[in-house]
Amino acid sequence: MKLYGERMPAPNPRRVRMFLAEKGVDLPEIRVDMRKGEHKSSEHRARNSLGQLPTLELDDGTTLSESVSICRYLESLYPEPPLFGRTGLEQAQIDMWIRRVEFQLLIPTGMFWRHAHPFTAQLLEQHTTFGESNRPLVERALKWLDRELAGKTWIAGEAYSMADIVALSTVDFAGFVGLEPPEGLENLKAWRERASARPSAVA
Amino acid sequence: MKLYGERMPAPNPRRVRMFLAEKGVDLPEIRVDMRKGEHKSSEHRARNSLGQLPTLELDDGTTLSESVSICRYLESLYPEPPLFGRTGLEQAQIDMWIRRVEFQLLIPTGMFWRHAHPFTAQLLEQHTTFGESNRPLVERALKWLDRELAGKTWIAGEAYSMADIVALSTVDFAGFVGLEPPEGLENLKAWRERASARPSAVA
Repeated sequence: MKLYGERMPAPNPRRVRMFLAEKGVDLPEIRVDMRKGEHKSSEHRARNSLGQLPTLELDDGTTLSESVSICRYLESLYPEPPLFGRTGLEQAQIDMWIRRVEFQLLIPTGMFWRHAHPFTAQLLEQHTTFGESNRPLVERALKWLDRELAGKTWIAGEAYSMADIVALSTVDFAGFVGLEPPEGLENLKAWRERASARPSAVA
Repeated sequence: MKLYGERMPAPNPRRVRMFLAEKGVDLPEIRVDMRKGEHKSSEHRARNSLGQLPTLELDDGTTLSESVSICRYLESLYPEPPLFGRTGLEQAQIDMWIRRVEFQLLIPTGMFWRHAHPFTAQLLEQHTTFGESNRPLVERALKWLDRELAGKTWIAGEAYSMADIVALSTVDFAGFVGLEPPEGLENLKAWRERASARPSAVA
């Protein structure tokens, strides 16, 4: 089994590294240098037609993309500790939180990065007014997440889960692009400190 | 168990109706009228803090949102026929295809609808140049999906799955907002005809 990825700050490869660290599984990542455009090479496109990272290659040559889907597969190989839930309801709830974080927070963060960040301006045509319009959407999503975290230890409830991995990688990526959470979001801040204190967070 | 939803063309409630039809499960949908803003009422926000549809309410009052997550939960109650895969690899592959369709096709379709469609212009401030820039992204995604469907019966392989439900609801929604697939995408066209011929498609 081979894992192709890229270092921080890319949030998606980090999710898989965090997941592996939580499982205590050693699966070294083969770096595909995004700055050199290696993810768009024909070699990597044969593994992932969209030229994305991370990608997992099984021993029979089957490839699997999408960070969350890769982690789902790894969960089936290494079920303990469960990070996608045990019961049907837990699994659905964790899945819901993954999707909520991605649709509410990651999408506007990504749109800001794509359309308003100076780094991306060097690479692609931007719609900066639209890009900037995502700044209040990110703030609104962070405030919503703060309210949802009231009285909870982890995003999906009592157990640390894939939803926390997705959320931490997203909140940290938002910070990297200049969208740090505003002051006063104490539930979010405390959760982020708890999640960041885990050994997996440095992955 | 109560299911709150809305009629076509809203793609997300339709997914759950299609899923229930494929399972042969009768769970009537309680309509929440989006045009009257009922989904943003305090009554519905108590079920879903984001005011979204669909939402499932269990008999103990637990609520579950996100169409795909609701269907995951229903799969645990009604496992046959499996629509999220049987093996760990199948489950990961179906999850990957759900995510690919959503990120590659649904997001730009939604951005076009949000920022370039005349209907939305009556309701919200738009960034129309950005909105229009999603038109070629949708076309690119449809062409990519057409290539990926070469030699395949269903999106994730040999078995009809949740990925087909997500893809059909998305392709149909794209058509509804004026982004029908261009001519010549024969694999996509044949797949869409197969999926649309199933009784669940009218849900």
